Amino acid sequence: MKKFNFPLTPKKIASKLDCITDFTNKVTLDNVAELHKANEHSVCFFENPKFLDILKKTKAGLIFVPKNFDKNLKPNTNLLLIDKPYIHFMMLVRTWLNLDLPKMKRSVEDSANIAKSASLGKNIIIGSNCDIGENVNIGDETIIESNCVIKYDVQIGKNCHIHPNTTIYEDCVLKNNIIIHASCVIGADGFGYLFHNGIHNKIPQVGNVIIEDDVEIGANSAVDRATLGSTIIGKGTKIDNLVQVGHNCKIDENSILCAQTGLAGSTIIGKTVYLAGQVGVAGHLKIDDGAMIGAQSGVTNDIPKGAKYFGSPAIEAGLQKKIMVSEKYLPEVVKEYRKRQKAKDKK
Amino acid sequence: MKKFNFPLTPKKIASKLDCITDFTNKVTLDNVAELHKANEHSVCFFENPKFLDILKKTKAGLIFVPKNFDKNLKPNTNLLLIDKPYIHFMMLVRTWLNLDLPKMKRSVEDSANIAKSASLGKNIIIGSNCDIGENVNIGDETIIESNCVIKYDVQIGKNCHIHPNTTIYEDCVLKNNIIIHASCVIGADGFGYLFHNGIHNKIPQVGNVIIEDDVEIGANSAVDRATLGSTIIGKGTKIDNLVQVGHNCKIDENSILCAQTGLAGSTIIGKTVYLAGQVGVAGHLKIDDGAMIGAQSGVTNDIPKGAKYFGSPAIEAGLQKKIMVSEKYLPEVVKEYRKRQKAKDKK
Amino acid sequence: MKKFNFPLTPKKIASKLDCITDFTNKVTLDNVAELHKANEHSVCFFENPKFLDILKKTKAGLIFVPKNFDKNLKPNTNLLLIDKPYIHFMMLVRTWLNLDLPKMKRSVEDSANIAKSASLGKNIIIGSNCDIGENVNIGDETIIESNCVIKYDVQIGKNCHIHPNTTIYEDCVLKNNIIIHASCVIGADGFGYLFHNGIHNKIPQVGNVIIEDDVEIGANSAVDRATLGSTIIGKGTKIDNLVQVGHNCKIDENSILCAQTGLAGSTIIGKTVYLAGQVGVAGHLKIDDGAMIGAQSGVTNDIPKGAKYFGSPAIEAGLQKKIMVSEKYLPEVVKEYRKRQKAKDKK
Repeated sequence: MKKFNFPLTPKKIASKLDCITDFTNKVTLDNVAELHKANEHSVCFFENPKFLDILKKTKAGLIFVPKNFDKNLKPNTNLLLIDKPYIHFMMLVRTWLNLDLPKMKRSVEDSANIAKSASLGKNIIIGSNCDIGENVNIGDETIIESNCVIKYDVQIGKNCHIHPNTTIYEDCVLKNNIIIHASCVIGADGFGYLFHNGIHNKIPQVGNVIIEDDVEIGANSAVDRATLGSTIIGKGTKIDNLVQVGHNCKIDENSILCAQTGLAGSTIIGKTVYLAGQVGVAGHLKIDDGAMIGAQSGVTNDIPKGAKYFGSPAIEAGLQKKIMVSEKYLPEVVKEYRKRQKAKDKK
Repeated sequence: MKKFNFPLTPKKIASKLDCITDFTNKVTLDNVAELHKANEHSVCFFENPKFLDILKKTKAGLIFVPKNFDKNLKPNTNLLLIDKPYIHFMMLVRTWLNLDLPKMKRSVEDSANIAKSASLGKNIIIGSNCDIGENVNIGDETIIESNCVIKYDVQIGKNCHIHPNTTIYEDCVLKNNIIIHASCVIGADGFGYLFHNGIHNKIPQVGNVIIEDDVEIGANSAVDRATLGSTIIGKGTKIDNLVQVGHNCKIDENSILCAQTGLAGSTIIGKTVYLAGQVGVAGHLKIDDGAMIGAQSGVTNDIPKGAKYFGSPAIEAGLQKKIMVSEKYLPEVVKEYRKRQKAKDKK
Repeated sequence: MKKFNFPLTPKKIASKLDCITDFTNKVTLDNVAELHKANEHSVCFFENPKFLDILKKTKAGLIFVPKNFDKNLKPNTNLLLIDKPYIHFMMLVRTWLNLDLPKMKRSVEDSANIAKSASLGKNIIIGSNCDIGENVNIGDETIIESNCVIKYDVQIGKNCHIHPNTTIYEDCVLKNNIIIHASCVIGADGFGYLFHNGIHNKIPQVGNVIIEDDVEIGANSAVDRATLGSTIIGKGTKIDNLVQVGHNCKIDENSILCAQTGLAGSTIIGKTVYLAGQVGVAGHLKIDDGAMIGAQSGVTNDIPKGAKYFGSPAIEAGLQKKIMVSEKYLPEVVKEYRKRQKAKDKK
């Protein structure tokens, strides 16, 4: 259950949505909840028929239901009949969060260590014990939560939200409306060495990371700086937790990298590419626009536009599925083969 | 070698255990060590016969050995003959750690930033530069080490130990006797978007995480908050390092998640389930009680009670082993097949 | 583009390298850049013929080119003809970084919380909000950046660089010239429990971690302390981001662990071993000197010296490749087999 400070009525909610309403009770609504946890002040949604029994028992004060819902199944209840109840419910949550009183004060905490040469925008938050280096620029409305470290010469745009304990290395550029979750590391050195005389000699990593507008990066992820030039995360791309992006990778717009996926160095990811969880992509490859890679796949070759690949090494998904279905027969096939070979050997 | 401030004698150690003792030398014991690193003040254990040569040379002041140990193999040495020497040795270590003088002062550091509305239990430790948000509750005896960030409305029970640089997002609930290792992130946003008009629209994540009693979570792991409702880690479950638990997962009691394992959203894990290292589990699945999943497996279907599965995609372990054994014959089988096909084509 | 404060001339650069020079223009150089981003003050390198068109257009002030480069391809340009342009370019970058004015002041920040019993070397940096525990030793020239937590009794040698938000648990030993990237966790408890009466009983973890000279560890990696004794990372070994090293592992000199690789407990890795990305190694194994393990492999057996293995489970690379090539025929082979079986059944 998520409680809000700013209460709403069923009418107010309905007024914001183009929908059929059937309000039988006057209630004040102050939270969103799952059906089985709801109280009389809760807003809920119902979409999946398998939860009908739970719907019948819920005390919720307002329920978003599909347009074709049979109202007799839940009499004496405030119902809001609407296309795609889940989506509209989530839109309400978003609106409500914005209406709600902010939980964080717009202020720069005294305990933050801010270099004199840093430039701070309007209406920002810098949490306690942050360390903001020389020549850092922070845009208006940006939130940097407690215990973040932003090294020198970093540029952060407007309306970003950096969660606690995140580190951003020198020279990196974050544009606008970016969310970085806790303990991320942006701009650590790429993993590059020259093996000479039995020793790995460190290749200096003097590039940076550029993160375009509207990117979100999950907790504990790492995006390495380029050796030279920039590692780039394109506009609108979303990255989950514990993801590794190697040095000099370029990810284009609106791609998805699910949790624990890793990209080796210098790989190029197109637009609206989908990499499922725990995928690994070798270095210097290109995954073209719209490609989809199944979970735990290991990509070792370029992937064409719109292709679906999976497996380790990843191959075209249709063929991979056929192979996987066939594998259960492999022990019998081999048994028969060996019998045949033995028979031959005897001759 | 682990040195303790509180010294013990062989007699005192023996008095706590039901065992046969043979103490030939008076010694003061102040550390536990491996056999090859031991000095005359060390307590050691010996169980594996392959280390007999090392045993013969060790200077240890007291050695836990099996009940049937031939004392002539290590004359003039304090021996403690006991069932399961390793387990009893480890029980001694635990006892000794408790007897030892604590290394951390029970205090709340001045540099911690604690909201006025936070409520602090008795005998707690809050390390330097922690940030404790509004309405946070911290139970008696709990330790929160330096540089942790606990956001608003978090509840933490009694006798918990949160290691440094950990972040806990708003609304999360940690019950009692919980250990969270360094740089964990509890309650970051679940990875949820609606793709509409070519853009990934963020689904607000307004649920929380509930961690039940006696859970331990390893370093750099991430447990995401639920979209609505709660992501739940059940009583006594142990989670290793760099593990990802997606939004709305429910893990029941006493399960084990080894390092780098990842659960996608809304998956249900039963009681005493064992997930080995680097396992991936797709979303909305159920792994039933007592199931065991081999390392690097990719779980794409529900797993029945007590079943053993492995592979990617994971199948029943017996069949998977047969397939793996058969695979080495595959190149020959295919060669023979292609020869046959060519012969056919010629006809 | 990486800009330096300390400018250089082509002559000065050439004087440090044994090379043929052809300097047609007097320029001041103050940055290194990629060819397509270069300005007249940039130093660049050219090695790969596929970038010839970019070379022709670049405005770079000085370009490292191969000895056999045809100067007519880039007239009126300062060229430095040299063996291995990339390697020498990178050596220049390293030299230049050292010449450059340091960006971090040699100082111990007031907001750092340093125990009285800690011992600090000469010319060190301790960033804001660090917490340095009792009896910690920090060697000369070492840098500990902001918001790190170093627990009690830790030893850190000379000329180390610990990046922000890193945690080092008690008793760990870091020798000299070590780089640890942001949010690493060194010395958290190993993952060890005894299952007894339906409960996982924690085995106390009283060993430590020893990191030898010249090791580098990437962002968000975790190296667990030994149960007893030491987890050891050998001299010159390089570890990438998000890597897990389990308790009691011993890694020898100059090995490479790529991103997201995980070692279970007590595994031994030899000298100059190469583990590619997302490799998993089971516990209590030995990977001998010079072995190479392909990406996403799952190692379940000891690996002999110099061997190349891959796959999950990992087998000898030559055989694995043959199997992988054969797999695409598997659906046909199985189809033919089943047809044959049906024909048999009918008889």
